[in-house]
Amino acid sequence: MDSPDRYLEPMKEALRVAGGGRGRVEPNPLVGAVILDAEGRYIASGCHKEYGGPHAEIIALEIAGERARGGTLIVTLEPCCHHGKTPPCTEAILAAGIRRVVAAMTDPFPAVAGRGFQRLREAGVEVIVGVGEVEARRLNAAYLKRVATGQPWVHAKWAMSLDGCLASDSGHSYWISNEASRYHVHKLRGVMDAIIVGAKTVRVDDPLLIPQLPTPRKPRRVVVSASGQLPSEAKLLRTAREVPTLVYTTAEAVPRLAAWQAAGVEIVPLPLQSPADPSAPRLSISALLDDLGRRGCTHVLVEGGPTLFSSFWQADAIDEWHVYLAPLLLATGRVPLQGRAARFMSDALHLAQASIAAFSDNAYLHAYTPRGPFAPSPLKSAPS
Amino acid sequence: MDSPDRYLEPMKEALRVAGGGRGRVEPNPLVGAVILDAEGRYIASGCHKEYGGPHAEIIALEIAGERARGGTLIVTLEPCCHHGKTPPCTEAILAAGIRRVVAAMTDPFPAVAGRGFQRLREAGVEVIVGVGEVEARRLNAAYLKRVATGQPWVHAKWAMSLDGCLASDSGHSYWISNEASRYHVHKLRGVMDAIIVGAKTVRVDDPLLIPQLPTPRKPRRVVVSASGQLPSEAKLLRTAREVPTLVYTTAEAVPRLAAWQAAGVEIVPLPLQSPADPSAPRLSISALLDDLGRRGCTHVLVEGGPTLFSSFWQADAIDEWHVYLAPLLLATGRVPLQGRAARFMSDALHLAQASIAAFSDNAYLHAYTPRGPFAPSPLKSAPS
Repeated sequence: MDSPDRYLEPMKEALRVAGGGRGRVEPNPLVGAVILDAEGRYIASGCHKEYGGPHAEIIALEIAGERARGGTLIVTLEPCCHHGKTPPCTEAILAAGIRRVVAAMTDPFPAVAGRGFQRLREAGVEVIVGVGEVEARRLNAAYLKRVATGQPWVHAKWAMSLDGCLASDSGHSYWISNEASRYHVHKLRGVMDAIIVGAKTVRVDDPLLIPQLPTPRKPRRVVVSASGQLPSEAKLLRTAREVPTLVYTTAEAVPRLAAWQAAGVEIVPLPLQSPADPSAPRLSISALLDDLGRRGCTHVLVEGGPTLFSSFWQADAIDEWHVYLAPLLLATGRVPLQGRAARFMSDALHLAQASIAAFSDNAYLHAYTPRGPFAPSPLKSAPS
Repeated sequence: MDSPDRYLEPMKEALRVAGGGRGRVEPNPLVGAVILDAEGRYIASGCHKEYGGPHAEIIALEIAGERARGGTLIVTLEPCCHHGKTPPCTEAILAAGIRRVVAAMTDPFPAVAGRGFQRLREAGVEVIVGVGEVEARRLNAAYLKRVATGQPWVHAKWAMSLDGCLASDSGHSYWISNEASRYHVHKLRGVMDAIIVGAKTVRVDDPLLIPQLPTPRKPRRVVVSASGQLPSEAKLLRTAREVPTLVYTTAEAVPRLAAWQAAGVEIVPLPLQSPADPSAPRLSISALLDDLGRRGCTHVLVEGGPTLFSSFWQADAIDEWHVYLAPLLLATGRVPLQGRAARFMSDALHLAQASIAAFSDNAYLHAYTPRGPFAPSPLKSAPS
């Protein structure tokens, strides 16, 4: 048997092509596959391109044809062995005469979860698991979290002045960031299943929350308002027949949202966070994420304002961070996060895998909440 | 006569070489010179390298020698015509047989201020002024401000968490930024005439404020403390015999600083800002900058904390901004600036010439307060 290291390079290629399905395959995982012939020569690659379409293995095997016989399949996730939207990949792999399967990781989806490897091994295929696993887990962190917890992966995004403020004194934030940053935000929205804002953002900014680009996905729009006090005129309300829109509120506040409901907005009551602060009741973020998970959301984007960011922050519910820093000064003290403050520098939460980009005169900083090495949160319920 | 545009390229080269004196020539201006021979061919360049040393024109003329005769001198600033630390450049230019001088701008220094050009023209030299003037004014913004107002150019520098905070709840800020950012800060300190911090920074962080690198300049250290309440043990105090250190305070508070004075620290009383807020008396930033200007300071760096940044901000006294954004979260609300808040987004102060760099996982944003196109502040006194 070869050293698994010889498959690192083709696995990198499989990981690279897997990204091609981003925004189109969810709630399925992103998967890429590479096929080497019996002599170890690269002959084909493929990725899972869209939800319901053929899996990566099938696309690569079709390209390879007879040349796959006696060859090796390199794949970023365990091949499926069940009838889902498509027939099981394990059977196609066996039919193609593949002799060796190198996979980055086991698929934790309950219908697979090792059974794919077992089927292949029982049919005499050599199976190597774990090559490129760290990268593969990072690639599918959102999928892994959803399978493990039922909740979507949560992105937070804000644009901030050079002095760390999110809005002017009157609460406005149009526009702190520049055009290049806003273009990037529209691309980000276009791979999301939901965009979430607080009630005050609706009252003050009256946003439309639609990606202004051709994008893989059209996110639903979500407003969080424990009080149910939302304006009876809003862009979200006027466009609710075109773009699915949802308001989370308390059971008591549902009647206040009759105008929104009549306009086609779905009104969903949620329990309050426990223990509730009676002066500022807040909805349970964990219940909210459970509900979005049940609705098939894999990636959701929290766009503010500070109250909503702070609710998610206090619930330790943000997985990925997107911050745009702009060269202007507001001096208003409207910072993004409150609560869970670092008493000492050693209490600071140091994010992982941070990277920087320049969008013209804006800096963009992107990072992850560390939860083991790129692993999803093991927490089903957020700490209160 | 040629179009002045044909001198843009050699002027760019002169501006480029001028930067070689940064941190060494101040309080003199940065100057670069290029010499073209009678046929317009490049033959020499030079820059003013250190305070008291030969000027850029002299260095370039010496390299050029006889080939300069009948040629053109391209220079970023009007040549001097007075005996300062060195003999007048105008006489050396005439002696070398230069036929044409192309200068980016007039030197506003009172002993020159057009007299250099006048001397050259009277001796029959063709003089063209204004080629590359915007760049030249930017290059010497600090010198121009000092000549116009008597005050140094003020840099503000802070490191900020991803959520816009400067320190933990207990006031500590070691370390928000990473090693690469701190290396950049030490380089920045090394071209400053003074580093200024507030009393709380001394009490909480006990900084040394010395560039930890071989640098062109050793900045003096300045503490601003209206109350004069400083610890009787501090690194600044212990090292005051090695590095000039100065405390600005009120006349009433001078006796409280006897231990500091005994350790070799200079104690300088200043008037309070007018109108004074009796609950939090603040020293006059304008008087402080007047005093630093009289001491020969061209560049000063304000390093915090938030109270001191806010005093400078409220006095509209910051010219240049250096902000490091780090991938960690503090959630303490310790923002850099208070006062002069933007009520609406249209009130935001948009900075000029912003640029971004990545220092490993930190973003660095650098920008200027717009005061005309890169011109120095015309304000002698800051608005209250």
